[in-house]
Amino acid sequence: MTQPRYDVIAIGNAIVDIIASCDDEAIAELGLNRGGMTLVDAAGADTLYAAMGQATEKSGGSAANTLAGLSQLGTQCAFIGQVAKDQFGEVFAHDIRAAGIDFDTPMRPTDGSDAEPPTGRCLIFVTPDGERTMNTFLGAGQFLPASALDEDLIASGAILYLEGYLWDPEEPRKAMRRAIDVARAHGRKVAFTASESFVIDRHGDDFRAMIEDGVLDILFVNESELATLTGEGDFEAGIAAIAGKVPVLVATKGPAGAVAIAHGERAEVAAEPVETVVDTTGAGDQFAAGFLSGFVKDEPLERCLKRGAVAAAEVISHYGPRPETDMQALMGEKLG
Amino acid sequence: MTQPRYDVIAIGNAIVDIIASCDDEAIAELGLNRGGMTLVDAAGADTLYAAMGQATEKSGGSAANTLAGLSQLGTQCAFIGQVAKDQFGEVFAHDIRAAGIDFDTPMRPTDGSDAEPPTGRCLIFVTPDGERTMNTFLGAGQFLPASALDEDLIASGAILYLEGYLWDPEEPRKAMRRAIDVARAHGRKVAFTASESFVIDRHGDDFRAMIEDGVLDILFVNESELATLTGEGDFEAGIAAIAGKVPVLVATKGPAGAVAIAHGERAEVAAEPVETVVDTTGAGDQFAAGFLSGFVKDEPLERCLKRGAVAAAEVISHYGPRPETDMQALMGEKLG
Repeated sequence: MTQPRYDVIAIGNAIVDIIASCDDEAIAELGLNRGGMTLVDAAGADTLYAAMGQATEKSGGSAANTLAGLSQLGTQCAFIGQVAKDQFGEVFAHDIRAAGIDFDTPMRPTDGSDAEPPTGRCLIFVTPDGERTMNTFLGAGQFLPASALDEDLIASGAILYLEGYLWDPEEPRKAMRRAIDVARAHGRKVAFTASESFVIDRHGDDFRAMIEDGVLDILFVNESELATLTGEGDFEAGIAAIAGKVPVLVATKGPAGAVAIAHGERAEVAAEPVETVVDTTGAGDQFAAGFLSGFVKDEPLERCLKRGAVAAAEVISHYGPRPETDMQALMGEKLG
Repeated sequence: MTQPRYDVIAIGNAIVDIIASCDDEAIAELGLNRGGMTLVDAAGADTLYAAMGQATEKSGGSAANTLAGLSQLGTQCAFIGQVAKDQFGEVFAHDIRAAGIDFDTPMRPTDGSDAEPPTGRCLIFVTPDGERTMNTFLGAGQFLPASALDEDLIASGAILYLEGYLWDPEEPRKAMRRAIDVARAHGRKVAFTASESFVIDRHGDDFRAMIEDGVLDILFVNESELATLTGEGDFEAGIAAIAGKVPVLVATKGPAGAVAIAHGERAEVAAEPVETVVDTTGAGDQFAAGFLSGFVKDEPLERCLKRGAVAAAEVISHYGPRPETDMQALMGEKLG
C-alpha cells in the first residue's frame, strides 16, 4: 500500500446552484418540498426558474462543496463528476479548480436535449428563516460513466468520499460501485454521505447491504436519514442500530449538534452559535468537510466534530454552499 | 404626444458579472486597471478567468442595473440589449424579467466564435477596500443592431436612457443614434450616462456634439468623466462648462457626494454613510436609478439626489450590482 497522494477523492454531482430569496407563500404556491431536495426534469426546472426572482449563480454539488471546504482547510483533494461542455460546466470546472482541487473528468458534449443534456443545476429557494428548498435538474451529471473514472487516481486517495445523491441515477451508481472496489483493493477508506432521506427510500437496501458487508468506513447521516436508514424513529436507537457496523459514524442533528462514534468511542458537539442564519445551503456538506479535515490528520474525535460545527456555522451565515471566510484562521480562532 | 407607457426605456450592455474577491497583489500581478473598466477579447477573458478565484455570477450591465433599481422603486421600465442564445443569455433574460422589466430583444445565435460570440461577461475583481476592477468581454452585446430596436417601444417611454459603454462598438452606436431620433421625434427625453472616461477618450467629440446640439436632456457623469468631457480639471469649472447646455446635469463625486443642476437650479447631496463598503460595483448605476426614480415623479431636485445617494449606499454594502434590499421601504425610511 503506497502512500496516498490525496487525502480525499470525491465522486459527486457537478452542479451549479441558482439561488434566490423567496417568501413562504411562494414555496406553498409552487408546491415545493420545503427544506428538502426534489429532482426535476428539464421542463420542471424551466418552470421553476421562470417563477424565481433575480438569482445568483454559484458552483455547488454536495460532495464538491465538501471538497471546497476541505481544500480551504489544507486538505489535498481531487473531484470526479460530470459536467457538460457549456457555460455552467465551465463555471463549475473553474470554481472547483480555483478552490485548489484537481478535476479532470472530461466534459460531456451537449446539444441541450434529454440525451445530451446541459450541466446540472439546482434551483434553490431561500426563505426568510434561512431554510433552503432545492430542486435539482441532474443534467449531464446522471451520465457519469464508470469509464470516466481514473482508477489510478482513486487508488491514490486516502479516503474515497461518495455522495448519496449520485447513487440514484444508474450510470453513476455503477461508477461508484466500481470506485469502491478500486479503493478497497488499494486499502483505502470509503466514506459515504446519505445526502437525503428520499435517496434512502429508493436505495436503502443497497446502503444497508454495504453497511452489513463492512464496505463503508465512514458514514455521514442526519437525523431523518438515520431514521429512514434504520427504521428507528428514536435518534439514539438509530445510532445503536448502526454504530457497531461502520467504523466511523457521524450523525448530525442540525441546531441540536452532532454525535460521532468511532471504533466504539463516542463524542458529541453542540451547534456553533450563528448570529443570523442566512442560507442553510451546504450546512451538511461543510460539516462533513470540517470533520474530515480533522480526521485526515488523526485529530481527536471531539475536535473533528467541533471542526464540523464551525464549518457548518460559517456556511449558513451567508448565501451559497461553500466557505467565504479564511477557514484556517477561523478554525485556529475557534479551536485554539 | 401620447401618454408614455413606460417611465424609462434603456439600451445597454446585456452582461453577466463574474465576481470574485482578490487581494491587491493579484491586481498588480495581472496588470489590471484598478478601479476601472477595461475591454478584453475572448482569449483575454479566458486568461483572467483562469487567474480568478471561486466566483459568483450575477446579472449585470450598467443600464440594466439601473433599470433593476428603478423597477424596485416602482418605475415602469423596458430594456433593449443583445444576449446570445446560451446559458448566460438565459440568466440575463431571467433576471431582468424577474426584476419586473420588459425585455424582448431576440437572442442572437452563437457558436462561440468571434463572429457569433457568446453572451457578454464582465470579470470583476473586488479588492479588500471594496473597489471593483472590471474586465469586460462584450460578446454578443457589441452586435445589437438598429433592426433589433422596437421603435414603438422607444416612442412609448418617457425617458430613453443610454449607456455610454455601448457607444464604443459601432453597431449598437448606430442603434442608439436611431433610438435618439425616434425618442426625440415623439417628444421623449434622452438621458445619457458617460459610463467611463475611456469611452469619452474615444468618443468625446460625439458626446460634445450631442451636448452642443441639445440632444441630451439628462446627463450623468462622475468627476473624472466630467474632467475628460470638458477638459477642465477642476470639478466646478467642469460643471460650469456644461451646465447651461444640458437641461439636467448630475455629477457624482463618489464618497464626496453629488451635485445636480436642473434648468439653472443647483442642489447637492452628501454620500450616504455605509457601515462597510463591500463591493462598489453598481454604485453609479444605482445612483442614477435612485435619482431617476424621483425625477420621473417630478420630485424636488435635492430629493432626487438623496434617493441616488441612498440607492448607491445600499448597493456598495453587498456583493453584486443590483439592490438586495426592499428599496421602497429603505427610501421611505431615509426620505421620510
